[in-house]
Amino acid sequence: MSGTVYLVGAGPGDPGLITRRALDLIAEADAILYDRLVPPGVLEGARPDAELRYVGKRPGEPSVPQEEINRMLVELARAGRCVVRLKGGDPFVFGRGGEEAKALAAAGVAFEVVPGVTAGIAAPAYAGIPITHRGMATSVTFVTGHEDPTKAAPTVDWSALARAGGTLVLYMGVRALPRIVADLLAGGLAPDTPAAAIRWATHARQETVTATVATLVEG
Amino acid sequence: MSGTVYLVGAGPGDPGLITRRALDLIAEADAILYDRLVPPGVLEGARPDAELRYVGKRPGEPSVPQEEINRMLVELARAGRCVVRLKGGDPFVFGRGGEEAKALAAAGVAFEVVPGVTAGIAAPAYAGIPITHRGMATSVTFVTGHEDPTKAAPTVDWSALARAGGTLVLYMGVRALPRIVADLLAGGLAPDTPAAAIRWATHARQETVTATVATLVEG
Repeated sequence: MSGTVYLVGAGPGDPGLITRRALDLIAEADAILYDRLVPPGVLEGARPDAELRYVGKRPGEPSVPQEEINRMLVELARAGRCVVRLKGGDPFVFGRGGEEAKALAAAGVAFEVVPGVTAGIAAPAYAGIPITHRGMATSVTFVTGHEDPTKAAPTVDWSALARAGGTLVLYMGVRALPRIVADLLAGGLAPDTPAAAIRWATHARQETVTATVATLVEG
Repeated sequence: MSGTVYLVGAGPGDPGLITRRALDLIAEADAILYDRLVPPGVLEGARPDAELRYVGKRPGEPSVPQEEINRMLVELARAGRCVVRLKGGDPFVFGRGGEEAKALAAAGVAFEVVPGVTAGIAAPAYAGIPITHRGMATSVTFVTGHEDPTKAAPTVDWSALARAGGTLVLYMGVRALPRIVADLLAGGLAPDTPAAAIRWATHARQETVTATVATLVEG
């Protein structure tokens, strides 16, 4: 009988922000395929005989292609294993979980998605910034600043986002920040809109720089 | 010495989707002020001598005003208690955590925010819907359909959101859905855009109806 694949979000980095369900599945799994950004220590909860495979992507280094990860998941499940695919944050928020779910569905492999706390919510919270606030922000948009290298992705309409009026949270946006800020300002976003740049989200060493949209790229 | 208030997200409803940190704090707390939508069973982890106060809001019934909740949090902390303010989902995503944080800061009370899994991410995941997907959706916007009764909130620019091109997740949107759909269609959203309505998010009885934007309100 075929095993099940669990697409599991491990949260944004602080080991306290992983869910109970994720911890339970890590403890049960026959095999765990894990990303670079899973919180420190969480794999210590795995069974001693569990197979742990690192399939993370590090900028500028060779990595396991997504198609190969999909193939591994299908093969392990077909061998009857209980498989955890462990990702930083949430699997369906810029986590490519959708691609894995699609591959599993196409192969007839049973899977389940276990949502996690996403960095776009947790990082501002650790910085004391409410991303929605009565009378201030009635919407929040998460958007990736990391362009799809295949260019198949639809272009983000930055001027529409500038006009939408809520909080804007940019994932993986450092490299593209100057261009994105220029597009937002051209789209009508007020230059004095408060802005923050955050790295090492929810880790003890989280760093937060606060500025305005206009001055953020200078900082 | 003054105690600390923890503004804690309990996740969207499935008791498995609460974080380890939330469970630890529930087990330590002297007092827990909890909402209507906290997952079943999570309060069983509280100390036998902990003070549990229900401060939830149920539509059409009398409830504890937000100002009164803020006052309770300040008073309990000033009495030296370790206080957990337990909310469904995430405290800063339509959870009014920002208002409580502001009141605590103004009173000089130490507080910490513990993010949670928000329903806007988890409910679609349980329905098998990736809210971002390479080549399909490079952004996702969470927006409340529940109008601020004080009318102090800025109006959502639905036509800008219609043009922004990503996934749109509406919280508490049932009552306002016909108006919101009309605004989105008037703003240029394609009537055949896939849409889903979900209730009892992540509970065993979660119900999902899939349709298009144009037909969702008829369903």
